[in-house]
Amino acid sequence: MSTHMQNQTFNLISCMQFADKYHPRSKVITQLVEDNSIHEITYGEMYVRIKKLANALQGMGIKLGDRIGTVGLNTYRHLESWYAIQGQGAISHTINPRLSMQQFEYIINHAEDRIIFIDPIFWPIIEGIHGKLPKVEAYVIYTDDAHMPKTEIPNVHSYESLLEGQSDEFDWPEFDENSGSSLCYTSGTTGNPKGVMYTHKSNRLHAYAATSPECIGMTSRDTLLVVVPLFHANSWSTAYSGPMTGANLIFPGKAMDGESIYNIIENYQANLAAGVPTVWTALLDYCERNNKILHSMKELLVGGSAAPPAMFRTFRDVHGADLLHGWGMTEMSPIGTLNRATAEIEAMPAEEAEKYRLKQGRPLFGVDLKVVDEEGNELPRDGESAGKLLVKGNWVVHTYFGAEAPAVDADGWFDTGDVANIDRYGYMEIVDRSKDLIKSGGEWISSVDMENLAMGHPEVLMAAAIAIPDEKWAERPLLIVVPKEGKNPTKEGIQEELSKGFAKWQLPDDIIFVPEVPIGPTGKISKLTLRKQYADYKAESV
Amino acid sequence: MSTHMQNQTFNLISCMQFADKYHPRSKVITQLVEDNSIHEITYGEMYVRIKKLANALQGMGIKLGDRIGTVGLNTYRHLESWYAIQGQGAISHTINPRLSMQQFEYIINHAEDRIIFIDPIFWPIIEGIHGKLPKVEAYVIYTDDAHMPKTEIPNVHSYESLLEGQSDEFDWPEFDENSGSSLCYTSGTTGNPKGVMYTHKSNRLHAYAATSPECIGMTSRDTLLVVVPLFHANSWSTAYSGPMTGANLIFPGKAMDGESIYNIIENYQANLAAGVPTVWTALLDYCERNNKILHSMKELLVGGSAAPPAMFRTFRDVHGADLLHGWGMTEMSPIGTLNRATAEIEAMPAEEAEKYRLKQGRPLFGVDLKVVDEEGNELPRDGESAGKLLVKGNWVVHTYFGAEAPAVDADGWFDTGDVANIDRYGYMEIVDRSKDLIKSGGEWISSVDMENLAMGHPEVLMAAAIAIPDEKWAERPLLIVVPKEGKNPTKEGIQEELSKGFAKWQLPDDIIFVPEVPIGPTGKISKLTLRKQYADYKAESV
Repeated sequence: MSTHMQNQTFNLISCMQFADKYHPRSKVITQLVEDNSIHEITYGEMYVRIKKLANALQGMGIKLGDRIGTVGLNTYRHLESWYAIQGQGAISHTINPRLSMQQFEYIINHAEDRIIFIDPIFWPIIEGIHGKLPKVEAYVIYTDDAHMPKTEIPNVHSYESLLEGQSDEFDWPEFDENSGSSLCYTSGTTGNPKGVMYTHKSNRLHAYAATSPECIGMTSRDTLLVVVPLFHANSWSTAYSGPMTGANLIFPGKAMDGESIYNIIENYQANLAAGVPTVWTALLDYCERNNKILHSMKELLVGGSAAPPAMFRTFRDVHGADLLHGWGMTEMSPIGTLNRATAEIEAMPAEEAEKYRLKQGRPLFGVDLKVVDEEGNELPRDGESAGKLLVKGNWVVHTYFGAEAPAVDADGWFDTGDVANIDRYGYMEIVDRSKDLIKSGGEWISSVDMENLAMGHPEVLMAAAIAIPDEKWAERPLLIVVPKEGKNPTKEGIQEELSKGFAKWQLPDDIIFVPEVPIGPTGKISKLTLRKQYADYKAESV
Repeated sequence: MSTHMQNQTFNLISCMQFADKYHPRSKVITQLVEDNSIHEITYGEMYVRIKKLANALQGMGIKLGDRIGTVGLNTYRHLESWYAIQGQGAISHTINPRLSMQQFEYIINHAEDRIIFIDPIFWPIIEGIHGKLPKVEAYVIYTDDAHMPKTEIPNVHSYESLLEGQSDEFDWPEFDENSGSSLCYTSGTTGNPKGVMYTHKSNRLHAYAATSPECIGMTSRDTLLVVVPLFHANSWSTAYSGPMTGANLIFPGKAMDGESIYNIIENYQANLAAGVPTVWTALLDYCERNNKILHSMKELLVGGSAAPPAMFRTFRDVHGADLLHGWGMTEMSPIGTLNRATAEIEAMPAEEAEKYRLKQGRPLFGVDLKVVDEEGNELPRDGESAGKLLVKGNWVVHTYFGAEAPAVDADGWFDTGDVANIDRYGYMEIVDRSKDLIKSGGEWISSVDMENLAMGHPEVLMAAAIAIPDEKWAERPLLIVVPKEGKNPTKEGIQEELSKGFAKWQLPDDIIFVPEVPIGPTGKISKLTLRKQYADYKAESV
């Protein structure tokens, strides 16, 4: 080991200190959860409040490594609390407010959270389970005294009252950069949720990679709409990469409908955005029905699930904005790949290039990918051989919080649970989640491909393909479709669309039209719910 | 310490492995040192040769931590040898071929280099000092058998002959990422040269920051002309950031005149470039005299010394290219700051904005700066208060190689030896090198300001201001000017230009016209030589 270069340990508070010194007037714009009014604050002002909150937490007896839960939508207060907690060496444990009561109780107790920060709109959850949270000593509600809910629970503070009278000086401690900074539980579909403990080091490296022009590529000249939740895997690093680049951040709060998203983009001239496909579907639907155009938007990042080709084309052709596919997971901090064109892809004819642009993309420097067969043999990078997608790197999970056994294999690879291929240009394509593949008569049918084709139909808003049990074929595909408002697509029309990519035996046994589909806690269509709902479904037509 | 996230140690070979996997067909284009012909090789092909060379070095008994000297201009072979050496845990010690024989001998012996890699054109240096290098066991000449110099020295190999018959499999070792990777000695003006030992960790973090769009911002769609030498502080990280982004690199070899630089930019459609002001002066001079325009160039990074305002304007107005000021030093890996506009600067009127764009820029995330007075008190960030510039960060030197005492103060700050101010937007401006300031009658006169104004005169190619001893005022300024070819600027005309920024008493006592100025080993004008040359100069006119 060499002591030739300076080897100060790294504390994530550095991101906000950098913003305070070099971008003090860049802004965080929040659509408030209380009343949807707009609140603006600069990084310089936030840093003062962060130091006050850090002092308040010290006063409450918080020590290095203690966990503090946060249950909040994207707001400036939520972001401030992250930095006050992480900067002093405690762990901010983001909790998805859309979890079930049972999951809520389980993860707060599993994490042994000592304090819970929570938005006022989610307070009723706590009223329901408070008695079952023996380790929680106090609650802080992300609001001021005027908006506090009435409660009999002791030790409940308004966020603003905590800051009052606190010093705006705080001496941030030094600690090993491999110390935990934050904790996020996966919304696993089987078993109990599992916690991923990020470290100061892992988040720093991930944020550096995220700011590169092969990924989000943020600078102080950008204004980024952060639709992806802070509670969902670090909001794709924007909580860190925003302050460290001085980009303006827009937090939409709870108003996630197409009209609200459109208005906040236009009002604040956002040129970058990050979110899941369902949000962009709602935005495009609003624009189409009201003849609206996005004027400032340049690039929208989409992840969480695959976005259909029609969505790419509409953003590009109607709004002059690039939709960029990303892929990652809670276990990856979360970004694994992003889809930007290489020089080789750019040089291709448009139609050929689009095939590559629709894939999940190439890994960031710092992450390694491979696709293996059932025996663990690496498959060729030919764009066709599909297998289990394994990942490795400093911002990939090693051992879940509280677990004894590592989550990686003997060579350090983590199995993502996705089925994918990689092509000769290094682009990875998710074929399906392992559990979403439909196995019919011994052959695989991709639910992702089926949904993408269905959403290419001009009258289809959303589509979900699931497997239903079948005596003869083991499983058969069923397609659930939400038509666009006022439209009445036919089963025949959609089957015709699907025939562009599927053989006759692969077509769904039936197509069901519904006014809406269940959305899971991370904003994705909940296939788990759909599978339960249609478990006994018998097809009426082929 | 948490084992929750994967914590593999980092080896810089990862940069080339990433290029091999994801950008195997991106190119390194070299103007060969042997005959100025063009050589092209892909990253994929280079990686095979790197593994062969790594095996050859193992065969020569190289072990973890051993130093290997490299004396080479920018070529693909030089870059390959870096990766083969660093990847196996040895140290590549870059040696500036323009050092004096005494310095050459000193640093090779101080580093205890076991092998020296060297360009054929520099071989005569070794013939002269071989007997004084007791630790050197072998020499490798960056060429093939056909171009080998004749020599009586034993154990001299051609680079290509070393690769022959070697396996293209190599099992890269794992080691602490704080291990040294490379060594570069500063060409100090006083005392013996001092070695800076970079580590795998420091180079990784520096390269991440360099690829961000606030710094070089490279992607696989870029082609970068690397004028800044590999032997000079990591070629501003391009040796790493090139492979890790898949950018094409152009190495100009030894042909650094304006015409050669122009031709290689145009022939390979380079859109980015990095180099010192003297190279860009030669390029602009060639373009002006031959009515040539740069077509593909978008951004040129300039560092090493301050570039005059006239150079910025010519690149922008004549060639449609942005000249971006950077600042750093060998002790900083080397990048400390880069000048890109923030949203606030972009919103200013052009004339106002230019004041900020001409400064050295804002620090990269990962480096901290401050300016202090003689007593060490931090000065306000008002754009006026100038003092000693101190720096801190993971890619800043802590202790010089072989030194016992650290190079930093008790709080970990490194004194750069520069005099600077920082403004409210975070832009740092170098006022002068501490040793280049001219102190006349107790008042400071900036040599940088004087040179910049002189170079604004349309007939001036280069200018250097130095202090000459004066009985009455202690020091007085003397200006040395190289006129553009075929031009005859007058002393009066230049004094008039200087009067735009200087009071009468600050004007130089004399202006001397010379056909050329001495250029030091790092491509900057050697003020040390000029000061010696004019130590006894008596001004003839005021």
